[in-house]
Amino acid sequence: MASESKTSEELARERLMDLAAEFYDQFDAGEIPTMELPTRTKSNIEYDEDANVWVYGDRTSTRSANSVRGARKLLKAAYTIEFLARQLEEDRSSTLRELYYLSESWDAEEAHFSGQDESNQLIEDLEIVSEVTREDFHMRPEESGATLMGPLELREQTRRGERDIHCQLDVGEGGYQIPNNPDTIQFLDHDIDFVLCVETGGMRDRLIENGFDEQYNVLIVHLKGQPARATRRITKRLHDELDLPVVVFTDGDPWSYRIYGSVAYGSIKSAHLSEYLATPEAKFIGIQPQDIVDYDLPTDPLADSDINALQSELEDPRFMTDYWKEQIELQLDIGKKAEQQALAARGLDFVTEEYLPTRLDEMGII
Amino acid sequence: MASESKTSEELARERLMDLAAEFYDQFDAGEIPTMELPTRTKSNIEYDEDANVWVYGDRTSTRSANSVRGARKLLKAAYTIEFLARQLEEDRSSTLRELYYLSESWDAEEAHFSGQDESNQLIEDLEIVSEVTREDFHMRPEESGATLMGPLELREQTRRGERDIHCQLDVGEGGYQIPNNPDTIQFLDHDIDFVLCVETGGMRDRLIENGFDEQYNVLIVHLKGQPARATRRITKRLHDELDLPVVVFTDGDPWSYRIYGSVAYGSIKSAHLSEYLATPEAKFIGIQPQDIVDYDLPTDPLADSDINALQSELEDPRFMTDYWKEQIELQLDIGKKAEQQALAARGLDFVTEEYLPTRLDEMGII
Repeated sequence: MASESKTSEELARERLMDLAAEFYDQFDAGEIPTMELPTRTKSNIEYDEDANVWVYGDRTSTRSANSVRGARKLLKAAYTIEFLARQLEEDRSSTLRELYYLSESWDAEEAHFSGQDESNQLIEDLEIVSEVTREDFHMRPEESGATLMGPLELREQTRRGERDIHCQLDVGEGGYQIPNNPDTIQFLDHDIDFVLCVETGGMRDRLIENGFDEQYNVLIVHLKGQPARATRRITKRLHDELDLPVVVFTDGDPWSYRIYGSVAYGSIKSAHLSEYLATPEAKFIGIQPQDIVDYDLPTDPLADSDINALQSELEDPRFMTDYWKEQIELQLDIGKKAEQQALAARGLDFVTEEYLPTRLDEMGII
Repeated sequence: MASESKTSEELARERLMDLAAEFYDQFDAGEIPTMELPTRTKSNIEYDEDANVWVYGDRTSTRSANSVRGARKLLKAAYTIEFLARQLEEDRSSTLRELYYLSESWDAEEAHFSGQDESNQLIEDLEIVSEVTREDFHMRPEESGATLMGPLELREQTRRGERDIHCQLDVGEGGYQIPNNPDTIQFLDHDIDFVLCVETGGMRDRLIENGFDEQYNVLIVHLKGQPARATRRITKRLHDELDLPVVVFTDGDPWSYRIYGSVAYGSIKSAHLSEYLATPEAKFIGIQPQDIVDYDLPTDPLADSDINALQSELEDPRFMTDYWKEQIELQLDIGKKAEQQALAARGLDFVTEEYLPTRLDEMGII
């Protein structure tokens, strides 16, 4: 793909071959082959003070070929490594789903994946042990990246050559579509004061219609619910490379707080990628439970599943701050949740003329 | 918005005012106000031989203010008409969800919507009685349009001026994002031989990576599952205005046949919009149950819900053709379904080098 990314692809291929070589050496020494991985449970993620993100702790699990089940897992790993190495050599790419189906064509029937959960998990395992990301293996996601709109000019390296795109002047109202691997993007120029990540399409369109991106020099990132890796990655790059503040604007319910959490601190599932995907400096703007009270927003009652999710957030290391404890306890107390579009109950301009400017000012962003 | 669309907005406003005037006249004549609508059930949709789409039949239902429930419905309609007329006057727009929340700010508490189903349904009712589309009321959807990639140059009229965009040369690998109202688009120039609508993102990316759009001069429309109205609308316009064949490529299961059905024949929910949204000339390319057999694709067994859905398709007027009867009965017989990405079991290039060219040739498209 991009000539500047050659190195990361060569590195990915090298690391994969090293893994295969390790199996070989173990066999050669008469040992039962094994693969060691960090234990991937909530109790084994911890805060990395230097990087400011959640990472795996010291506990590890060992995959060993000393059982039929374990041997099969390592066999599948060996086949997958071969496939990935060839894919990189040929400069091709594929989806996780294609990998699952492709295994049907492998000659050893024992190596066929029994379900996509298994192949997805294996790719994550390989990311962890090789310390290379899925994107560098050229594995594409099913979930697509979302869109950008704002005063940013970028260069995307596509298979068909370079494309220079200004994310306000060269795109339609739908905005610029983030590619599967945003590391093919180079930032050329910008006039952005801060990045605003927005959960829903309805609110994203409201901000664009009201000209919020132009008025405040905002780059609006549409998260589209739980954000794809590509969306989180570009958000991190915007923060790190352009030194821009990032704020996250979601619905006011426990599932949306998790969306914020995954942008800011990463997730348990991808704790091995926190340094690549997470933006710990990202701030939560709302909807806060306090806003529900202050602005008397239209609400829905908390369902049992909401209450359980809030309670489990109180135990979640990512939410163990005074701010979140206060907000979550307030929400459990009032028993209500509100969507970001509920701000429309005060008129279509309330969000851009009153709510966001007030909150951004409180947070010291504007 | 666009100066050329002024007329449709003026018309929309006029039609809305006419409806309100009708209520007024009924009151004035001492009559109980009513509103008449086609009955919106499957038994009341029928095939329009001229337009080649499914439309409502002759049966109608009457909303009358002779009950508290009916009176409330008409009150809500009156408030909504007022809101929409003002929105058009001010050249603003809003989402269905915002409308629901906005009703909280209306002075008559009886006019507040009790849920979003109610406000969505009312907007559909108003579309039907006014014979104007939601887009012309400036109501935006939550669901966003999907993307285009292929040899098409278009001009989009945005709130910020005109944008000329070539859907291969001026976009990144993510493609061109279809705006909420694709009637703001004007087709400038193209080199398209046919339009290929693709259900999943994984397959869309496979076709782009393999250069299928370049090799066969295809415009690839990503449906993203059940397609948004904007996606169906632009597909219809591509067919009607540029006289292009349209083929639909989905998974091989009953839910995906419905995706094809909604592109080709419209849906019961939007039967009043068939002439605006449906492309009856669109052809289904696959995955056909016959392909599952012919290519021995990896499959999943049909679940009970799949079997029920297939059986109800046998009764669905949109699927009452010999072709569909044969395919659906074959599928019930083999008891299996397959995804489009299952073609990867025969290698990553099988879909573009073998499967699609063979099917397109059979269908007389290439």
